[in-house]
Amino acid sequence: MRERKAIGIDIGGTRIAVGAVHMAGIITAKKTFPTNPQAGFNNAMEQIRVAVKEVLFEADWSLDEIEGIGVGCTGPVNTDLGVVENCFTLPSWQGKNLVAALEGGMGKKTYLENDANTALLGEYIAGVARDVGNVVMFTLGTGVGSAVLIGGQLYRGMEGEHPELGHMPIDPEGPECYCGQTGCLESLVSGGAIGQWAEACAMADSHEVFAQASKGSEAALQILDMVARHISRALSVVFHTFLPEMVILGGGVMEGERGRFVQAVHENLHGFEFIPLQRVRVEQAQLGNDAGMIGAAYTVFTD
Amino acid sequence: MRERKAIGIDIGGTRIAVGAVHMAGIITAKKTFPTNPQAGFNNAMEQIRVAVKEVLFEADWSLDEIEGIGVGCTGPVNTDLGVVENCFTLPSWQGKNLVAALEGGMGKKTYLENDANTALLGEYIAGVARDVGNVVMFTLGTGVGSAVLIGGQLYRGMEGEHPELGHMPIDPEGPECYCGQTGCLESLVSGGAIGQWAEACAMADSHEVFAQASKGSEAALQILDMVARHISRALSVVFHTFLPEMVILGGGVMEGERGRFVQAVHENLHGFEFIPLQRVRVEQAQLGNDAGMIGAAYTVFTD
Repeated sequence: MRERKAIGIDIGGTRIAVGAVHMAGIITAKKTFPTNPQAGFNNAMEQIRVAVKEVLFEADWSLDEIEGIGVGCTGPVNTDLGVVENCFTLPSWQGKNLVAALEGGMGKKTYLENDANTALLGEYIAGVARDVGNVVMFTLGTGVGSAVLIGGQLYRGMEGEHPELGHMPIDPEGPECYCGQTGCLESLVSGGAIGQWAEACAMADSHEVFAQASKGSEAALQILDMVARHISRALSVVFHTFLPEMVILGGGVMEGERGRFVQAVHENLHGFEFIPLQRVRVEQAQLGNDAGMIGAAYTVFTD
Repeated sequence: MRERKAIGIDIGGTRIAVGAVHMAGIITAKKTFPTNPQAGFNNAMEQIRVAVKEVLFEADWSLDEIEGIGVGCTGPVNTDLGVVENCFTLPSWQGKNLVAALEGGMGKKTYLENDANTALLGEYIAGVARDVGNVVMFTLGTGVGSAVLIGGQLYRGMEGEHPELGHMPIDPEGPECYCGQTGCLESLVSGGAIGQWAEACAMADSHEVFAQASKGSEAALQILDMVARHISRALSVVFHTFLPEMVILGGGVMEGERGRFVQAVHENLHGFEFIPLQRVRVEQAQLGNDAGMIGAAYTVFTD
């Protein structure tokens, strides 16, 4: 059987990763560089085109061999039009047609997807959710991204819109969020939110909270316990709505600490009548930053 | 074209309704009687069999003409096995095979479904959600039932289980619920919950709260405002998760007051960044008690 190959690209607010990816989820070559949104959209597209050529060279693949280019980009994105709609993280990219820019430059069919969706697809193809068709994933980072897989297909809301589980309301007494609500999940558990709790306790940011917690600081541990309780309530929402087989917790900011939260969720959900706790799974993401690249490549194969 | 016909049965904790239903959702004859769970399962099955014969006679339909019998029963139910698992509302029915009992007695193929699901199917076939494929419905009654339709199909969670949206967590400071959580939706907005708020304000029950509110009682209006805020947060959860085209509010206890809550939800969700408020709809159920019967009959036609 011919090996199917594609380029997978993961675009975050901080960094872009380009990989030469086999259908089974194996990365043969990859390259990362800063997103640098201030330098503008065209500059980034040029850097991506160069990186694609470099990873192809490194993988010893020709452009003809690959079936296309899959891109996961920090959302919101319009997957049908191929347009970036992200006004918060990539202001200079707003309204730009990424698919047209890459197809024009490379001559290969290109697909655009929300980066939380590609991260989940990656975990589904080659990570912790292999062969698990009903999965919800949260990516806890600067913000809180989310993705939902039902029957092995990405779930989309009305008119194809990406549901933002990261902004589900959790605590009516919580902080205000730019989403227009008080106490949404992102306002309570994102890296930014932990930074706010940190400042109130004379710590610099979320990184210091994690560092202090690992040294046994009472204040830092209390912050992380509170965050864990909010994450647990978000998972209760997920199990009372989508009721998936698995929830994955991933995301860069909390990299070293996800184990703590997974553990806490297991404890906090104990005794809930309508969640079949013996049969649902709460897991850490396995592939880290590679998930997005693998999932992005996968969108090429499923067209 | 031959007219397709079925029997639709709606079984609640209080009352059972049996109808002769056309595929388009028209009820030609119906009969209702008390559920009377104390009299036991076999007694209820016998009453249902008698009622089926009566409505067929009234509709002037023969048993041969109908394609089958669809039953919506207060949940949880096991639709695959045809078994009632409801330990709270119908204790004497627990573990009984309703499908076997009716198929044996009537000689017609019988289908069992959760009653919140059949109510939503009814609204989809002949009510407010006609031709709207992505819908979430809450039935606000003694408890809070829920149902989800995606692409015109009932949504089920892992291993076919019915997700209990009525127990999604809403307010960490809320009352304890038998579901094992504090501040789940049912603990805050069900008829029982309103009854609890009522007692704290020297009113007898939820009915008195609604009656006093319509006379302008400040205390009663405050209770209903609070309930409306909790319902609004539940709808925010729904729009940040399933992101359906429509949410329907129905259910017996709040019959006369649903308009108030629909109105309040529209006001409370104003300005939410990630809900396309111009395009999603929040509506009152249209068919009242008939929805379940119509939806139950519909399960026969979609087998």
